[in-house]
Order: sequence, then structure tokens, then C-alpha cells
Amino acid sequence: MKEVVRRSECPVSFCLDFLGDKWSFLILRDMIFDGKTSFGEFLESPEGIATNILTARLKMLEAEGFIFRYPLDGKVRTGYCLTRKAIELIPIIVEMLLWGVKYGQTNPRREQINALKKDKEGVIDRLTEKLLKRTRDTQKQL
Amino acid sequence: MKEVVRRSECPVSFCLDFLGDKWSFLILRDMIFDGKTSFGEFLESPEGIATNILTARLKMLEAEGFIFRYPLDGKVRTGYCLTRKAIELIPIIVEMLLWGVKYGQTNPRREQINALKKDKEGVIDRLTEKLLKRTRDTQKQL
Repeated sequence: MKEVVRRSECPVSFCLDFLGDKWSFLILRDMIFDGKTSFGEFLESPEGIATNILTARLKMLEAEGFIFRYPLDGKVRTGYCLTRKAIELIPIIVEMLLWGVKYGQTNPRREQINALKKDKEGVIDRLTEKLLKRTRDTQKQL
Repeated sequence: MKEVVRRSECPVSFCLDFLGDKWSFLILRDMIFDGKTSFGEFLESPEGIATNILTARLKMLEAEGFIFRYPLDGKVRTGYCLTRKAIELIPIIVEMLLWGVKYGQTNPRREQINALKKDKEGVIDRLTEKLLKRTRDTQKQL
């Protein structure tokens, strides 16, 4: 795995040291907004991530404490679950979503986006709580 | 210049199609938070961007309508100014900043960050207005 290099003391730079690429935030989007948990589910996303890139990004996200693995289907498959560190990225992804709706002229998540426009803080808080609960429940099973 | 490929209809993906790399958001950070306008100023940032990467990112940002060029020092040098499309990325960068402060254990922009924690919307609104005015003023001179 390519080592994550910290380029400066800037907090913005720190975030991009880990997540400044075309794919990491999309895996997190899949987990946060669509509840995806498995390698196969990430592969199915419309952007068509390559298996080697997905493998590398999952390894980085796990090594850097954004996700952890847990057994699915009686240990046959591996699931990935978000840590608090990743769940607290929600506001960044929400702002990307709102900017993308405006400038990308596309709106496939219409209900979510309308809810966000009405009550951004509330939607973020509820989603955060839901995902933190899922994380606690998953950790209990380990 | 490498062409920007739109990978899906997802607004988050749309944002990352342009800005999903380690450097573009840092150039925008320099322009937004530090008022930097020139190639030389971007080079001086602590992350040490390479000149070829900086050249490529500025070309992309200009081609995709995030920045425009204007003459500095009686046309001797080139200045770069943000468009509204880039100025409206402020909430994304602010959320990266706040996340980075928490998880990066670093706080070099203490005053800005304290102000953001107290009144995020207000700080974003005032900064947006200030930068939109600067953009209008720069456009008038062209």
C-alpha cells in the first residue's frame, strides 16, 4: 500500500492526504447514503471502479481507521463498516452533493436532496446517529 | 490537458470528476482563505506543489470555469481569480477544514476556525460575498 504522506499542518491538506483522489469519497458515499457494505456492492456502483483500485482504497481506508472489517453471512464474506472518523465526513460529502446538484445539472437523489435543502443540519444529525448506531451494533458482534 | 470524464449522474461523483485529486482543492484553499492570485504564490504553499502539477491543475480549473486569468502589474504577470462556481465550493472546504482540525490534531488557522465553530453560516456568507465582489471588480477591469 502506498504510504499516506502528510504534506503540511493544514487541516484541509490533512483531509486530502487521505481522501484526495477520485474514488475514496465514492466508496464512503456508497456506505453512507446507500448502506453498502461489501466489495461486490461497491463494484456495482455506476462509476465502475476497477477491482485493483477498490482493493487499494479499502486497504488504505482500513489502515487509516476510516472503516473496519466484520464477517458477513456466517463469515463467508467480508463486510465493511464505517468508523466515527468516516461518519464525521458526512458534512463534506453533503456539501459536494449540493454543489454537484447545482453545477452538474443532475438530481438523481431527489428526495434526499430536497430534505437536505430544507433541513441540512437535521438530516446530517439523523444520518450520523443512524450510522453511529450501526457501527456500535456491528462492533458488539465482533 | 487530460480530459475530465464524467463517470456517472451522481452529484458527488461530478464534483470529484474535476476536483478529486490531492492538489486542486489546495489551490482553491490558497485563493479562498489566503487571497493568493499568482503562480509564484501557489508555489510557496507549505505542501510544495511541483510546477508541472500546478500548471496542469490551473489549466484544468480555467478550462472548466473555476478560475479566470487577468493581468497583474501592468500585464507583466498573470493573476488568477475565482468564478462563482469555485466560490460556491467554500462550504466543502470549510467542512474539510473542520474535520481536519478534529482528526489531524492541528490548528494553524486558529482565529478562522474559532470563528467558524461559533458561526459557520455567517463566516461562509461573508467570505462568499467578499470573494464575489472581488470577482466582479476584477471582471470590470478586463
